[in-house]
Amino acid sequence: MNSTGRNFCSDNITPASPEVIDAVTAANTGMLHSYGDDPYTKRLSALTSELFETEVSVYPVATGTAANALALSVLTPPYGAIYCHETSHIVTDECGAPEFYSAGAKLITLPGVHGKLLPTQLDAPLRRAGDLGVHHVQPAAVSITQATEWGTVYTPSEVQALSAEAHAHGLGLHMDGARLANAIAQLGCSPAEATWKAGVDVLSLGATKNGAMAAEAVVVFDPTRAADFEARRKRAGHLWSKMRFLSAQLVAYLETGLWLRNASHANAMAARLAAGLATLPAVRLVQPVQANELFVAMPERLIEALLADGFEFYRWLAPDDISDPVIRLVTSFCTVAADVDAFVAAARHRASAV
Amino acid sequence: MNSTGRNFCSDNITPASPEVIDAVTAANTGMLHSYGDDPYTKRLSALTSELFETEVSVYPVATGTAANALALSVLTPPYGAIYCHETSHIVTDECGAPEFYSAGAKLITLPGVHGKLLPTQLDAPLRRAGDLGVHHVQPAAVSITQATEWGTVYTPSEVQALSAEAHAHGLGLHMDGARLANAIAQLGCSPAEATWKAGVDVLSLGATKNGAMAAEAVVVFDPTRAADFEARRKRAGHLWSKMRFLSAQLVAYLETGLWLRNASHANAMAARLAAGLATLPAVRLVQPVQANELFVAMPERLIEALLADGFEFYRWLAPDDISDPVIRLVTSFCTVAADVDAFVAAARHRASAV
Amino acid sequence: MNSTGRNFCSDNITPASPEVIDAVTAANTGMLHSYGDDPYTKRLSALTSELFETEVSVYPVATGTAANALALSVLTPPYGAIYCHETSHIVTDECGAPEFYSAGAKLITLPGVHGKLLPTQLDAPLRRAGDLGVHHVQPAAVSITQATEWGTVYTPSEVQALSAEAHAHGLGLHMDGARLANAIAQLGCSPAEATWKAGVDVLSLGATKNGAMAAEAVVVFDPTRAADFEARRKRAGHLWSKMRFLSAQLVAYLETGLWLRNASHANAMAARLAAGLATLPAVRLVQPVQANELFVAMPERLIEALLADGFEFYRWLAPDDISDPVIRLVTSFCTVAADVDAFVAAARHRASAV
Amino acid sequence: MNSTGRNFCSDNITPASPEVIDAVTAANTGMLHSYGDDPYTKRLSALTSELFETEVSVYPVATGTAANALALSVLTPPYGAIYCHETSHIVTDECGAPEFYSAGAKLITLPGVHGKLLPTQLDAPLRRAGDLGVHHVQPAAVSITQATEWGTVYTPSEVQALSAEAHAHGLGLHMDGARLANAIAQLGCSPAEATWKAGVDVLSLGATKNGAMAAEAVVVFDPTRAADFEARRKRAGHLWSKMRFLSAQLVAYLETGLWLRNASHANAMAARLAAGLATLPAVRLVQPVQANELFVAMPERLIEALLADGFEFYRWLAPDDISDPVIRLVTSFCTVAADVDAFVAAARHRASAV
Repeated sequence: MNSTGRNFCSDNITPASPEVIDAVTAANTGMLHSYGDDPYTKRLSALTSELFETEVSVYPVATGTAANALALSVLTPPYGAIYCHETSHIVTDECGAPEFYSAGAKLITLPGVHGKLLPTQLDAPLRRAGDLGVHHVQPAAVSITQATEWGTVYTPSEVQALSAEAHAHGLGLHMDGARLANAIAQLGCSPAEATWKAGVDVLSLGATKNGAMAAEAVVVFDPTRAADFEARRKRAGHLWSKMRFLSAQLVAYLETGLWLRNASHANAMAARLAAGLATLPAVRLVQPVQANELFVAMPERLIEALLADGFEFYRWLAPDDISDPVIRLVTSFCTVAADVDAFVAAARHRASAV
Repeated sequence: MNSTGRNFCSDNITPASPEVIDAVTAANTGMLHSYGDDPYTKRLSALTSELFETEVSVYPVATGTAANALALSVLTPPYGAIYCHETSHIVTDECGAPEFYSAGAKLITLPGVHGKLLPTQLDAPLRRAGDLGVHHVQPAAVSITQATEWGTVYTPSEVQALSAEAHAHGLGLHMDGARLANAIAQLGCSPAEATWKAGVDVLSLGATKNGAMAAEAVVVFDPTRAADFEARRKRAGHLWSKMRFLSAQLVAYLETGLWLRNASHANAMAARLAAGLATLPAVRLVQPVQANELFVAMPERLIEALLADGFEFYRWLAPDDISDPVIRLVTSFCTVAADVDAFVAAARHRASAV
Repeated sequence: MNSTGRNFCSDNITPASPEVIDAVTAANTGMLHSYGDDPYTKRLSALTSELFETEVSVYPVATGTAANALALSVLTPPYGAIYCHETSHIVTDECGAPEFYSAGAKLITLPGVHGKLLPTQLDAPLRRAGDLGVHHVQPAAVSITQATEWGTVYTPSEVQALSAEAHAHGLGLHMDGARLANAIAQLGCSPAEATWKAGVDVLSLGATKNGAMAAEAVVVFDPTRAADFEARRKRAGHLWSKMRFLSAQLVAYLETGLWLRNASHANAMAARLAAGLATLPAVRLVQPVQANELFVAMPERLIEALLADGFEFYRWLAPDDISDPVIRLVTSFCTVAADVDAFVAAARHRASAV
Repeated sequence: MNSTGRNFCSDNITPASPEVIDAVTAANTGMLHSYGDDPYTKRLSALTSELFETEVSVYPVATGTAANALALSVLTPPYGAIYCHETSHIVTDECGAPEFYSAGAKLITLPGVHGKLLPTQLDAPLRRAGDLGVHHVQPAAVSITQATEWGTVYTPSEVQALSAEAHAHGLGLHMDGARLANAIAQLGCSPAEATWKAGVDVLSLGATKNGAMAAEAVVVFDPTRAADFEARRKRAGHLWSKMRFLSAQLVAYLETGLWLRNASHANAMAARLAAGLATLPAVRLVQPVQANELFVAMPERLIEALLADGFEFYRWLAPDDISDPVIRLVTSFCTVAADVDAFVAAARHRASAV
């Protein structure tokens, strides 16, 4: 587990952190009431409220898609509009899960530099929705990703500005925090500052990419939405009978700061990779590197050379102003400096040849 | 793990079998492609086809509700009718998951002795649906539970008779096999004989209650439904990124016969408990005991006495012809003879007193 | 239009009342704002509030299925339970519309003499739902049909008792009033007494069967549900652009008492038919005749003889305690005494022969 | 009915053509079987097949939203993608009806000059969907509007090119023909050439805006989709019991060429208005005028002056390259030359003043 080798595809190629596996193994003893009426789930609940410095409702689920779709389903009616960035995971990579869970709400996509939305971008679509009245889907929520799909990070004040605009129009704010830990590691703020203090209503808190086996938590800051959430989770088949195994992962993730240690390490590896690549004239970082993802433009022949060298990564949709093809490189808690250095060395070597 | 103590609530109060935890721990190494493109999932696929003696598509998910709802969603249009027993888990305990996943199909419930459906019971409702034409929901599937919700077991020929009737009317047959292992342990037949050879089209194969942490497999015997299933699983948030952890559980469950050993043991404990209770005049088994569940009628004061002794179990809806209250007792792979004997002894002692 | 001849199939075989056609024709002039911002719709709104003696929201739609499904969709979450009689139109004849519009709510059917529910029947299912908690669909609404599917009529105090029980458990009460006019004609009470004063929250007010071309009104007595209803109607495609043509029908139906005149006539024809049939030993009315439907048990040979005579009617599902086959006979505002007398005469003649 | 006066808001402000009202009145006689088993509906079926020169299935419904949403629901699975122009009525003005009827399919919007899509625009999104595999919604259909939302008209060969591309990728082609009559009037081709001969699979054929009271027809060219369509229409509450009143409107609309006469007139009025406005330097037509809608850029003060003169019209979202505000002017079968001339005169007068 101390190397991701040549594989920079994603942070979900990783196994789990030893602490998580140990916790699961430790939970494998004795008879316990099912469906969350167990000490691990109670512990998780207390721990999450403590971490966020406020009373929250927390719902473990196994996947990020489930977390996002369930979170959104308590923020929108079936005829609602959810405003989000055009590159959002909920738009491109969840096979319509938000539409499914919300019974048909519409994701209205907006552009935005570095994968971020700005409050002013809501003006025109909200005005338009108001003009069209009952003929248009009804504005219900804004969803942002933190860290963004472009590996950048919203500051708390940027989130605050968005939530203020959303709330002023009666919309809820959802944060897809699949990589929230990486964002917080970068920001150096508290989880509370990054979320509810900045106006987030419902949070998808990722853990799988950052050390868990399969565990995400939906954190609902507004307690009036709890009963609805529980019923929705159950009927979606996301309420585990042996909940201990889901909760134990998240307890291990949260209680000794594993989430922050793992994310900080992944970010550091990304920064090292960025620094290394910055020395190569043939390549160009197309977004600021603020978390654990890099988006790198490079000549097609260099991409092919690196693939031939056995490196693995995904090609990515290039921003409009970039002519070279773009790849995504992801680091994780498993990445070590040698992995990063090997990539930089190979890129340098290949770039000089091509 | 070698005792369920005084807790007879359910087989989902158990931890996982050591073999399953070992497999998960063993899978926790190295980088692997995500979303099922990994050796554990490939192994599971081969193993399942081998076990069922035919090429199948197998889809691991984490809960039985997800398995059932997804399985049904590929058998019915949104305006379809699914015929099932009135005590079915899909009817009473899944918070509307089948309706959710099918976008609104209707479960039409039928009575039936010992929790079983008979082919002739389909005659009247199918004729009625035919008479009402487009005004009625359109018959699409039959769903049965094996072992049933009353702890009884369909014989392969009983399943065959149902599937013949269903297929003759263009309906698919779904089997909720949350406790299929227990049924097969009782029947002594092969998995193939219990399922597709008897006409089952889509199977929910349970493992969680019988030794896994959180793992069920949907087995699709008809390959034409595979693409649809994959998209539906993804958009429901049931496609794990680190699929290895789901597949490894099922591989451990299937590859050395753990499924059958665990189920046979649970059944044996249930039989021992039934034999013990049969000696007590105050109690009455209200269903034949053929798997790992017992449904026992007894005087209210005896129930209260046993609860006061610290035994745990659920009260159950009594069949119409039973006047005493009914409780359910469930044994599992963790139950030991001493657990059973302690219950019988307490019941004898308390019954003599009350 | 002054005869239904030998056709007793349904009250929807009729054309519209001349008053309705005249109103539609009269509305066919001039440019008007679309989607309900027109004088006919405003007039309908005022008229309905006046008729019900309270401020209501009224939404015209073209079919009873739309009215019922939309009405229920504002009373239940997607994971809700709607309790209703097993013979309800919403259960048997709407191809799953309530499930569609509610995004998957479950109709839980109850038996009941004369097509009626009793408050005590809710006890067991509500207790069961409470016991099963999040695993069960969540109780949301009760739906009753007035007049019932068996042609009987709830008294206001019967409705009151049901609504009291429903409201005590936090459930809303929906009334499918496809034949509410016939019920009120029988009861001799006011529309207010028959509905909101007896605790009805949302009403489907039928007109099509009783003189309109295609017009039903959903009457929402709770104004907080109005915005939700409007969005749901629009996205269901039930908001007409030329709304004048829908509203004008309902204005004509309501403003000069056409609804009551037509229904009273239909009821009188049903009573005459019942009186005539009561003289024949071979036939038996299987339900009290309180509105405009008769359910008649008779020997199969008599049914066939009447069909051979050119009479048209539907066979119906016989109540459990009736061995002879059952037919339904429906009268309407178009039925005349001669139509009724011809049927009775034919039945007498044929019965004496068979 | 021989004037729309100063109201250019929409073609749905109109009453119905006298021929349509006459047909409805004529249909108001006698008892008829309900739900479409009547001579008017049979006549409509024959007539539509004749008009399109091929055997079709035709389904009358009351609104364009219902027609579009139902049409799309038979072309896409719930996890499907429907590619359409960003200005499509299905995107902006149906409150999420397509998502509702399809149980969650996603509308993926594309830009396009004059409101039209080009086949090459499908390349990138389809490639992207292919790359993302099960994570992405699955490409299912293309939907185009004819005449477009910008009042322009696709030529049959443009439609053919789109359908060829769609079909090559396994996608169906839907045409929202709310104003198909206006398009055909402009093209001078046959209905067959405009639709199925150019590869349209399912058509929403508008009539309401062009002379009906409330009647649209979904025309399904692929007979294998008929049974699915019928069940979907029924459960959506769009199957009228007194179907005669819907079918009679469409029979009147189609059988004597009313559809083409009305549309030709509306187009002629639009052309006259365009010609008049073209003489005014202050205003600019922002799209070619090919049907019955004009989109006109003009100074804000001129808009306000015209509103002050009592003219009615909607403001419209301006294309990106237009700085002046834009209004939409719609002509219809009721518009007369004097209405048009009055607008032009007022605009000339006001423009010279401002």
